[in-house]
Amino acid sequence: MTTSFDGPPIPIDTRAAVLDQFVADETGRRGSRPRGVAYATGLDDVLAVMAWARDSRTPLIPRGAGTSLEGHLLARGDELILDLAQADSILDISPADFTATVQPGVTRTRLNTAAGEFGLQFTVDPGADATLGGMAATNASGTTSVRYGGMRANVVALQAVFADGRVMRLGRAVRKSASGYDLKSLLIGSAGTLAIITELTVRLHPIPECLASVRISFPTVAAAVDAAVEMLGLALPVSRLEFVDTASVAAINDLRGTRYAEAPALFIDLETGSAAAANAGEREIDRIVRAHGATAITVARTHTERHALWEDRHRLFFALKARSPGHRFLVTDTAVPCSRIADAVGTATRLGDELGLDISVAGHIGDGNVHVVVPYTDANLPVALQFSDAVVRHALAVGGTASGEHGIGLAKKKYLRDEHGAAVDVMAGLKHALDPHGLLNPGKILDV
Amino acid sequence: MTTSFDGPPIPIDTRAAVLDQFVADETGRRGSRPRGVAYATGLDDVLAVMAWARDSRTPLIPRGAGTSLEGHLLARGDELILDLAQADSILDISPADFTATVQPGVTRTRLNTAAGEFGLQFTVDPGADATLGGMAATNASGTTSVRYGGMRANVVALQAVFADGRVMRLGRAVRKSASGYDLKSLLIGSAGTLAIITELTVRLHPIPECLASVRISFPTVAAAVDAAVEMLGLALPVSRLEFVDTASVAAINDLRGTRYAEAPALFIDLETGSAAAANAGEREIDRIVRAHGATAITVARTHTERHALWEDRHRLFFALKARSPGHRFLVTDTAVPCSRIADAVGTATRLGDELGLDISVAGHIGDGNVHVVVPYTDANLPVALQFSDAVVRHALAVGGTASGEHGIGLAKKKYLRDEHGAAVDVMAGLKHALDPHGLLNPGKILDV
Repeated sequence: MTTSFDGPPIPIDTRAAVLDQFVADETGRRGSRPRGVAYATGLDDVLAVMAWARDSRTPLIPRGAGTSLEGHLLARGDELILDLAQADSILDISPADFTATVQPGVTRTRLNTAAGEFGLQFTVDPGADATLGGMAATNASGTTSVRYGGMRANVVALQAVFADGRVMRLGRAVRKSASGYDLKSLLIGSAGTLAIITELTVRLHPIPECLASVRISFPTVAAAVDAAVEMLGLALPVSRLEFVDTASVAAINDLRGTRYAEAPALFIDLETGSAAAANAGEREIDRIVRAHGATAITVARTHTERHALWEDRHRLFFALKARSPGHRFLVTDTAVPCSRIADAVGTATRLGDELGLDISVAGHIGDGNVHVVVPYTDANLPVALQFSDAVVRHALAVGGTASGEHGIGLAKKKYLRDEHGAAVDVMAGLKHALDPHGLLNPGKILDV
Repeated sequence: MTTSFDGPPIPIDTRAAVLDQFVADETGRRGSRPRGVAYATGLDDVLAVMAWARDSRTPLIPRGAGTSLEGHLLARGDELILDLAQADSILDISPADFTATVQPGVTRTRLNTAAGEFGLQFTVDPGADATLGGMAATNASGTTSVRYGGMRANVVALQAVFADGRVMRLGRAVRKSASGYDLKSLLIGSAGTLAIITELTVRLHPIPECLASVRISFPTVAAAVDAAVEMLGLALPVSRLEFVDTASVAAINDLRGTRYAEAPALFIDLETGSAAAANAGEREIDRIVRAHGATAITVARTHTERHALWEDRHRLFFALKARSPGHRFLVTDTAVPCSRIADAVGTATRLGDELGLDISVAGHIGDGNVHVVVPYTDANLPVALQFSDAVVRHALAVGGTASGEHGIGLAKKKYLRDEHGAAVDVMAGLKHALDPHGLLNPGKILDV
């Protein structure tokens, strides 16, 4: 560790070779070289850095595992990166309260391992092994949100440091409250622009007695999507409801050596309290998918089988990366109303064809949240951006959102007013009230 | 209708006999006589009233069905009541999107009747036939929140008029979004102090194929509570999990002519997709409650039986009122962490005995949200208030909240700082930023 300027009183690294690693993110998007990276292990460190940032008017970029896909962690000037990955203590697991309290650098898989010893699980599952702090900052969700909701539904309390140095506790470890304004929800999804999260209390859920996973192949994309939407209308005990297209299945087969039929597919988890209930659910799903022309139905019941099936799904982004070496990747993240899911998937597929892009479509279909993965090179970046822009504008036009779960970051700012109208001014007003000097991840979400 | 002052350009009533009806609320709590009551039928009316309020510096108290139990609707000076009960159009039901869009004066039972025609339900059920606008304003929840969450989880989008006259749409009709700050959640639960809700889009859920309701009597309060908490740990398909004490059951028997065993009881709904799953759930519940010494188990399977059972539970407040004629009623509303539910119920029972109050205890036990109903007269009001204060302080001391679902209103303001600490200052800052002249339900939640 070296300090080349009068930095904050915690370990800090300013070596160019290190800082260069923070210039680009997972998608290949690039920012400027930050002023340094400071490593915080807890509240006292964050307070010290915040005080220094106020004195020196240096903006901060709080950071966890660094898995953002929307440019949340890129510097636009000489910000200091505040790395919280080492603030990684699990402070408490309270099985009788169905809660865990952690520092922001704890990753979701570590928490799940610890909670599993009590028969409990932390359900928010964005795929990447992100930190809980980063997941709260971006209101992450994922495969299980169709049943359990995303971070906003699963964080019951936060401790956070505000720009003026005040430490606040927002929310309490109860399952519901109608007390005061919901500042906790305001911070969740604010991407470190309003305060820095230094502690989280999250909900844990019992691991259900009986889980079955089902993978179903369909003749067409439309058949798969229609079957999924029909399931939503039947109150089935579905805890995951995922769609992957043919290109995605092929990529998984390539990477994982699986032999899945290369056709549009649904991956489904059923969560029930008993084998009888699971069987009843499987029968109902069987009936629905056959009516939509399902060509193959595979049920995984053992832990090992189920784990393998979901590992395949979770590795999809890596599988797609492996399939297009030398490319960078753009991932769309729109969510649309249920009635427009088939339309959104169809539009993306058609646009990809028209623009000659080698896209693949997957997504949390039960939430209307569709991801299109677009490999690109410098040569066809403009076409990839044209595609992404068209997908977002389509989603907004049908009442959807520019981001289902990845956030606005830098990349989606230009859509904010189209989506929220004058409410953007209210957001900017709150940002100004809470961070008048723009010290907290400036330029992310909003242009301030 | 008469106008005795230069009022807003919508129907307004200023007759003393009418205004006197707004001086007290359901609990008997009293405020001052408002300046008038204006009847709005939609956005244009609200905009006109808001403009008039700005010009004349007259504060407004937005109002729906008037079922608040915490003084949200009482005037402290010469506020104008803005009655939105006639803004009661169901604007759209979109079964394919699982959403409904309504004006704020639509009541939950009217929406449910309309949604039922599509096999869908609006799940938030506070007992009272409140308006959707009022329910959003107070973040209402109720018997089904253990499964479906409260208003914050079930409102996907709002239209609202801010104090400066701007109309905003907050949120979109999607199941998830990570776009921008969550202003929608900020408004929900703000009790009309930040903006006036003029339209809501809410989630609808499929009515499950198979519902069974179970009523179980226990030898002791502790046995009932312990059984309920054990159920929470087993991921059973429970959609309602309610506790009533002996006094409550006796009151129901008196009012409804039922012959329930006068003992502590749980009322439970099981929601499943099949009879097989329901049977499995019933067997599991049977096993748990017998282990806790259950003395009677009654299962209701037909619609008529189930409806009668829940009507009994919903009429509880009326049953208790009928049992203590000439009394007014205070209802506590704390929620505590799961591990402290038995403690909270036990503490309330013991305190009631010590203070010689004829209390009864019921609550959304699956959410840790306990209601104690305290009948009182002018003579023992101080004792009732002493009881309520002790219950709230106990809840806060064990990590709970002063309000699970009724809100802060006037009555719980004194606990806000104990519960939220310095975050109260942030709340006040947001209130000032959004309503600098204090025109929106001033003095509720906060002292501004």
